[in-house]
Amino acid sequence: MILETINQPADVKKLNEEQLVLLAQEMRRALLTRLAKHGGHFGPNFGMVEATIALHYVFDSPKDKIVFDVSHQSYPHKMLTGRKDAYLYEEHYDDVSGYSNPHESEHDHFIVGHTSTSVSLACGLAKARDLRGESGNVIAVIGDGSLSGGEALEGLDFASELKGNLIVVVNDNDMSIAENHGGLYGNLKLLRETNGKAECNLFKAMGLEYRYVGDGNDVSTLIAAFQQVKDCTSPVVVHINTQKGKGYAPAEENKENWHYCGPFDVNTGSPLDSFDEEDYSSVTAQYLLKKMKKDPTVVAITSGTPAVFGFTEEKRKEAGGQFVDVGIAEETAVALASGIAAGGGKPVYGVYSTFIQRTFDQLSQDLCINNSPATIVTFAGSVYGMNDVTHLGIYDIPMMANIPNLVYLAPTTKEEYLAMLEWSLEQTEHPVAIRLPGGVMASDGKAVTKDFSELDRYEITQKGSKVAVIGLGTFYALGQKAAEKIAQKIGTIPTVVNPYYITGVDKPLLEELKREHEVVITLEDGILDGGFGEKIARFYGDSDIKVLNFGLKKEFLDRFDVQEILKQNHLTAEQIAEDVVQLL
Amino acid sequence: MILETINQPADVKKLNEEQLVLLAQEMRRALLTRLAKHGGHFGPNFGMVEATIALHYVFDSPKDKIVFDVSHQSYPHKMLTGRKDAYLYEEHYDDVSGYSNPHESEHDHFIVGHTSTSVSLACGLAKARDLRGESGNVIAVIGDGSLSGGEALEGLDFASELKGNLIVVVNDNDMSIAENHGGLYGNLKLLRETNGKAECNLFKAMGLEYRYVGDGNDVSTLIAAFQQVKDCTSPVVVHINTQKGKGYAPAEENKENWHYCGPFDVNTGSPLDSFDEEDYSSVTAQYLLKKMKKDPTVVAITSGTPAVFGFTEEKRKEAGGQFVDVGIAEETAVALASGIAAGGGKPVYGVYSTFIQRTFDQLSQDLCINNSPATIVTFAGSVYGMNDVTHLGIYDIPMMANIPNLVYLAPTTKEEYLAMLEWSLEQTEHPVAIRLPGGVMASDGKAVTKDFSELDRYEITQKGSKVAVIGLGTFYALGQKAAEKIAQKIGTIPTVVNPYYITGVDKPLLEELKREHEVVITLEDGILDGGFGEKIARFYGDSDIKVLNFGLKKEFLDRFDVQEILKQNHLTAEQIAEDVVQLL
Repeated sequence: MILETINQPADVKKLNEEQLVLLAQEMRRALLTRLAKHGGHFGPNFGMVEATIALHYVFDSPKDKIVFDVSHQSYPHKMLTGRKDAYLYEEHYDDVSGYSNPHESEHDHFIVGHTSTSVSLACGLAKARDLRGESGNVIAVIGDGSLSGGEALEGLDFASELKGNLIVVVNDNDMSIAENHGGLYGNLKLLRETNGKAECNLFKAMGLEYRYVGDGNDVSTLIAAFQQVKDCTSPVVVHINTQKGKGYAPAEENKENWHYCGPFDVNTGSPLDSFDEEDYSSVTAQYLLKKMKKDPTVVAITSGTPAVFGFTEEKRKEAGGQFVDVGIAEETAVALASGIAAGGGKPVYGVYSTFIQRTFDQLSQDLCINNSPATIVTFAGSVYGMNDVTHLGIYDIPMMANIPNLVYLAPTTKEEYLAMLEWSLEQTEHPVAIRLPGGVMASDGKAVTKDFSELDRYEITQKGSKVAVIGLGTFYALGQKAAEKIAQKIGTIPTVVNPYYITGVDKPLLEELKREHEVVITLEDGILDGGFGEKIARFYGDSDIKVLNFGLKKEFLDRFDVQEILKQNHLTAEQIAEDVVQLL
Repeated sequence: MILETINQPADVKKLNEEQLVLLAQEMRRALLTRLAKHGGHFGPNFGMVEATIALHYVFDSPKDKIVFDVSHQSYPHKMLTGRKDAYLYEEHYDDVSGYSNPHESEHDHFIVGHTSTSVSLACGLAKARDLRGESGNVIAVIGDGSLSGGEALEGLDFASELKGNLIVVVNDNDMSIAENHGGLYGNLKLLRETNGKAECNLFKAMGLEYRYVGDGNDVSTLIAAFQQVKDCTSPVVVHINTQKGKGYAPAEENKENWHYCGPFDVNTGSPLDSFDEEDYSSVTAQYLLKKMKKDPTVVAITSGTPAVFGFTEEKRKEAGGQFVDVGIAEETAVALASGIAAGGGKPVYGVYSTFIQRTFDQLSQDLCINNSPATIVTFAGSVYGMNDVTHLGIYDIPMMANIPNLVYLAPTTKEEYLAMLEWSLEQTEHPVAIRLPGGVMASDGKAVTKDFSELDRYEITQKGSKVAVIGLGTFYALGQKAAEKIAQKIGTIPTVVNPYYITGVDKPLLEELKREHEVVITLEDGILDGGFGEKIARFYGDSDIKVLNFGLKKEFLDRFDVQEILKQNHLTAEQIAEDVVQLL
């Protein structure tokens, strides 16, 4: 096997054309075996096998620096840069992350997981090279789906200012996670159809030189193209047309479903685990589709991840013009929602916690200063969410909950969530965000009659004394369990509170708690710094009430075991109870 | 005077060509008089007089909706929409804000002050119109300088997806606040030079229809152009070439200086107030220029506001390749800084507190996950900073200080600042941000010997007992004053602490304070929610120490009187002392 002999990029350079083609086949086979067992990003990697071989054949990494956008297409790169074992041998599968990582290899330059950053980061490496009087190529590899993101467009616009060497490889497979959205994709299509010859050219309009490679899955053609731009002295775009999922029929046929996969049967492509149960995604789509039929002003918005709130291709069709995909363009998604709400529509933007991070200023300026009654639903904002360091959902509370005017709600069950969603859509006073709980969806079938328009009114769900437990969102259930343990230990039943509101403090209720309580504890599914619990600690700062805030430490976690992390942060019911007892 | 007869856009429509030209002259005269007395945005408004007249002549506001980008060019619009008195009569000057504002008029649709949002917001209004089955034009007016911002480019890319009516007026005066930076400006130049006929066209590449108007300061030409696109059924760009500062010689000659002005002498253009004193901007430029000469890897970065850290045109020339203006593209500025630092350079990004808001995700992902040792200096992060609701500097602590790995420092004097800057540039372990104090720069001439690499070590600057005052940044001096008042009132000298670090808690020092203190108070120049003081409150939550957090309420303030706001928030030395005495 050729792949077994590749320990560094120099080993790729020794191969002849025929061997390079064989290598590509072997890499695909290894990817297929690994992905079938382990899951991961499928389509992006299958499409990039030949281009990655060509890059390492032509350029001299790590002197020449390759920056992968999102870096979910960097598996082939890892295979060729000393990490092949992680793709060949099951016992080594977990030796590498799913993204580029300088801690793994000198051939990786950044930890990257969000889209649209590669060109700007590569500009930085190029500028540093020039300031230091060094030489070498800097190459950004960016997929067409990432081009719609503001940072990528900024980066392309800025790149020509650099004057020196910079190569931007645009990997155009005519797909984002789902289909592409945005006018620039018409231009990419035109360029593909004219073999790159059309005069109207987005990249040239950004001041960049431009080359086109029609067959982006042909190693020899790619090598020739990269050789032509190697050591160029001004920024150049190499636009390559690849096929997402290339080499595996099911992935070629259904690109959206095969962007990312869990373990599957290699022969049929069928997933080994199937999740047919109701979850927050499916109930959201179900609710919204029903609501859309009754109210033509309801509109669901996604920024390139329609699956996050259950909008499969079929459901998107059902929604028609009441579903909008802005492409990977979170800033525009928030501004669009604000504009729609200001114009009398009822927008619901469904987004992962980790990606709403891209919109702090839009939340503050476009949405909240204008008090536009739009609705945002934050998914996977939880320690139970994604667990790559680049995709954590544990920072959204400090980011969002301190923005004036925003009402950020934390339901604990399906019923509470749907009641909040309904309230939010029908009110016209506030921008509202709803943070869905992590883990398995809880549902108790109870009707929710609470009027959410009376802001910052918490609810005492169990009346006790001595200790009060305020459990936010996901951790409300943990709070209940901790309360039981505390009761067992101290012989007094604690009070339990469901706060619902992340953005405000229920002063009368907290004041009332002073009467029969000594200790108030808070639990939140996110980092403590800047979060919910600290607001409670501030409230009680001048009183005799003792406060313990439970939540996560401010740090970047990576590929962690949830139970382990909960334990480290004193977030088991037993640990919480112990801490409380110790304080009493 | 014609202007005096204009009470609504309908009054503009009654005028003939000659009268429209006269109206433009009158509007410029009124603007000149007002700006000379009152200050404000000069160049942007002088350039947009004719285009605004033409917009209101052709379109039917408020049914047709005009969204101004940044909206610092909306003075002529305000003059024609019932608010002329605020431009004609000195006693009414303060009736209006410097930005669009729906609370002022039904002709304004959003409160806007940051750049690059208009297209995305306008897309929202257009979508709402279509969902509601209504008609009418939606017009975004965006300057060329704003086009480099990610949100604007996202918006342009997305616009064509809408299919319905949307008109984007690109006001091209070939300037940002300073000169433009970015490859797209080459394309705008090409379009100007070819009278809009060049095939390579950024807007067409984004899937938009396109028209060009060479004389953007000619009312008749503009009217004809707008009439052609009125009621269009798909998105179209009208690219108009205007002259920034048109009609006032000093402003035509020095566009950068006349972007914004304070009160000035109309005859000479000389400012009435001159600020020659050293401030944080000038000392930053001075320090960096000196440092650059010794170290070729030091590089200053701005995102379109070079003046923020003292880089006048002359100083930019002096810095040469060691000064980079990315254009209005804050996300790219942070990513670039991270990339330069990762590549071994020493970048310093100088930015207003209000604009760093645009980079939460870049701070978290591009910079902090990668632990790149870049330096950011945050200006005007203070209640003493800008006081329009869109430009407040009181939210950066909750936004930045809760991001893992970032070291966010708060100097209280010039000397501390320069010591921090020097330390930050020479260390290679952490991403560092420095929050400059508001108000007049304090300087005590004392040498600073503190080693900032020992993170989160606060300093006791006055050893006392009973009460400890932790005064952060700007409010350290207020803390000293409050301590004096407290001493007078209780007869015991309080301890005073300079914490330096916003991002971390000095546990040993706080622990030590427990011994001889009953009350710890914190003061911070920003909102309390998610801020510095709450971390101290959390720390002491389980102890007998009482904590009072002083700072600003979480709210959007607009054109406020600083002393008034400080008083409302119990932020005078006397109020603080009273609150403390009450608690003892």
